[in-house]
Amino acid sequence: MLCNKIFNFSASQAMIPYTVLKKIKKDLFNWNNKNISIMEVNHRSDYFVSIVENTKKYLRELLNIPLNYKIIFCFGGARVQFSIIPINLIKNKFNSADYVNSGYWSNSAINEAKKYCTVNQLNVLYKEDGLIKVHPMNNWLISNNSSYLHYCPNETVDGIYINELPNFHNHNVIADCSSIILSRVLDISKFGLIYASTQKNIGLSGLTLIIIRDDLININKNNIVPSTFNYRYLTKYNSMFSTPPTFVWYVANLMLKWLKKKGGLSKIEKINKIKSNILYKVIDNSTIYNNNVSSLYRSYTNIIFKLPNANLHKLFLKESNMAGFLNLAGHRAIGGIRISLYNSMPLLGVKKLAKFMYNFSNKYS
Amino acid sequence: MLCNKIFNFSASQAMIPYTVLKKIKKDLFNWNNKNISIMEVNHRSDYFVSIVENTKKYLRELLNIPLNYKIIFCFGGARVQFSIIPINLIKNKFNSADYVNSGYWSNSAINEAKKYCTVNQLNVLYKEDGLIKVHPMNNWLISNNSSYLHYCPNETVDGIYINELPNFHNHNVIADCSSIILSRVLDISKFGLIYASTQKNIGLSGLTLIIIRDDLININKNNIVPSTFNYRYLTKYNSMFSTPPTFVWYVANLMLKWLKKKGGLSKIEKINKIKSNILYKVIDNSTIYNNNVSSLYRSYTNIIFKLPNANLHKLFLKESNMAGFLNLAGHRAIGGIRISLYNSMPLLGVKKLAKFMYNFSNKYS
Repeated sequence: MLCNKIFNFSASQAMIPYTVLKKIKKDLFNWNNKNISIMEVNHRSDYFVSIVENTKKYLRELLNIPLNYKIIFCFGGARVQFSIIPINLIKNKFNSADYVNSGYWSNSAINEAKKYCTVNQLNVLYKEDGLIKVHPMNNWLISNNSSYLHYCPNETVDGIYINELPNFHNHNVIADCSSIILSRVLDISKFGLIYASTQKNIGLSGLTLIIIRDDLININKNNIVPSTFNYRYLTKYNSMFSTPPTFVWYVANLMLKWLKKKGGLSKIEKINKIKSNILYKVIDNSTIYNNNVSSLYRSYTNIIFKLPNANLHKLFLKESNMAGFLNLAGHRAIGGIRISLYNSMPLLGVKKLAKFMYNFSNKYS
Repeated sequence: MLCNKIFNFSASQAMIPYTVLKKIKKDLFNWNNKNISIMEVNHRSDYFVSIVENTKKYLRELLNIPLNYKIIFCFGGARVQFSIIPINLIKNKFNSADYVNSGYWSNSAINEAKKYCTVNQLNVLYKEDGLIKVHPMNNWLISNNSSYLHYCPNETVDGIYINELPNFHNHNVIADCSSIILSRVLDISKFGLIYASTQKNIGLSGLTLIIIRDDLININKNNIVPSTFNYRYLTKYNSMFSTPPTFVWYVANLMLKWLKKKGGLSKIEKINKIKSNILYKVIDNSTIYNNNVSSLYRSYTNIIFKLPNANLHKLFLKESNMAGFLNLAGHRAIGGIRISLYNSMPLLGVKKLAKFMYNFSNKYS
C-alpha cells in the first residue's frame, strides 16, 4: 500500500506491501553497501544461494512442510505446469489421470492434459435453487488406476472455493494453489504436489512454486521432459539447472519475510476471512449485487458478482475507479465484477470498498 | 553504473545502466502519478499492452527486422529453447537437424535436442599452432534433408565468436544470440529464428526474445507442444497466452529505450569493439595472460584467459575484486578468468580493468 487512497483488487498482479517496496528501493542502487544493484547479483553468488536457502526455510516454516517434500521453483506461471505436470508424471500417453472440472482454470488444465494422457474428467459442480454447489469429495468418481488426481481448490474466475481437504487412500493429489497459497493454513501432507504462481501472494509474475513429495520426483524416466522443467533436475540443481529469474526470486523472498512478520498463516487466515466476510455481507444485503455461488463454496480470495444491467455494470466500474478501487472488472470469460483479496490487500482497503459498495447499492437499487 | 568504482563483469546478470535504475526507482512507488507501483500493473491493462508494442517497435527499429518476421517473448532463459525449438520445429523424432558444436553452450543444445530428433553434429573447431580456429561455413557438412541448422555464434564459456554470417541456400538457420543480441548490427534475414535470453543486453533474467520467420511458426501441428511455449500461440496471443513476467518485460523495454538513446547498434558495435580491443591488447602484450583462441575467432563480448598457475589465478581474482572488478572467475566448466563486456559495461570500466591488468602483469611476470 503506497497511500491510503488507491487499492488494487487485481486478480493477477497483486499489490506489493510498502515495506517490501522500501527494501527493493534500498537494494536497487546499493545492495548490501556494495555499490551494485540487487538486479546485478549473480545467481551463482553466495548471496543469491543464501536467498534461495532462506526462501525455502521461510516456506518450510510458514507451511509446516513435511521433510519428505522438496521445494522447487520453475520458470513461468501455473499455466506452464498444466503441460509440465503430465509430462513429468505420466509414464506414457495411454496412462490416465483424474481431472476435476470446477471452473475456468481447472478446465484449462484439462484441455492441456489431454495432449499427454487419457483424462478422466470429474464434473463436480451442480446447481440447486439457482446456486452453484460442489459435490462432496466422497462422491467424486475417482479411477482405480489413474496416475494422479488434479484439482484447483480455488477458481479465481468463477469465485468458487473447495474447502474440503482431499483424503483419498493412496491417490496422488495435485492442486493448483496459485490463488490461495500462503493465504491460510494448509496441510501439505494431504497432497502429492501443489503448485502456485508467484504473482498473487509471493510477489511478481514469472515464477512458480512447486512443493512435491519425494516419490513423485522421478516418475518419468523416458527422457522427453525438457531438462529445464524436469522435476528431477530442478531438485538436483536446487532450481538452478539454468539461470533463474533472480529478481523475481529475490522479491519472493521479501514477500515471505513480510508474511512471517505479519504473524504467519493462522494470523493471515483470520484477516483474510474477515476481509471476505465484510464484502459478502454487503453483497447479501444488497438487491443489485448478485453472487450465484452457494455460501459454503464461495471463494474468500476472489469474490464475484453481477449487476442487474450493463448500465449499472459500467457505472460501478467507473465510479469505483474514480474512488480509487482498481481492476474490479470480472474475467473476460464471464464478465461481471471481481474483487480479489490477496494477502497484501489491507483491511482498510476492503472496508473502504465495502462502504463504497453499500452507498452505490443504496443509490441505485 | 552506480559509481565510478565498482564494475561487474559477470557473464550472466549484466550491469543495469544508471538511467534505467533511476526510472525504475521512480516507477516503484508512484508509477505514472497513479499512486501504484509499476510492479502491480496488470498485463491486460492498456499500459502494459503499450509496453509490449513499444518493445516490439524498438526491436524492429534497432535490429531492422524484416516484416516477414515476428517478435515473441517466452518464459525462461535460452536453455529452455534448447528443448522448445525442436519440440516446435521437428515434425517427428525420426526427422533430423544439423547442430554445430563450437563450445559449451552449442554442445548443451545438442544434448538436449537428441531427445527430440536425430542430431547431425557438425564439429567445426580445430587447433592450429596451439590456437583454436573455426572452419569456414563453406566447409560445414550440412545435410540435405535436415529440418534446420542450429549454432551459437558466440560461446560465452570458451570465448569463441563466429563472425561469418550464414548463407546456406534454403536452409533454416537458428542461432542462439543470447550473448551478442543488440551488441552489433545483425542481418536478421540470414536466419530462420534467433533467440536470446534477456539478462545480458536486455535487462533481467526470466525471459527470452525470439525473432522468427513467418513460415516457421506453424511447423509442428501434432499438438505435443506445451501451449505456453507454442510459437503459434505465442504469436497469436502477443506473447501473453499466459501471464508474462511483467516486471522483467518492463525492464527490457527500458533497456531498449536506453540503447536507442545511446545511438543504436552501429554506435554500440563500435564501442564494443574498442572495449574488447583494449583488453586483448593487454593480454597479447603480457607473458602471464594466455588466451588460446586464434584472433579471427575471439569473442568481443566474453574474453577468456588463463594464468600460469593456481596461485596467480587466485591472486588475480583477489586483487581484482579488491580493486572493484567483480565476477571475473571463468565458468566452472573450464576455470581461468572471464571478462564479459555487455552493452552496459562502460568504456571507463574497461579502461580501469586494462590498467589493473597491465600493472598486475608487470608486477608478477
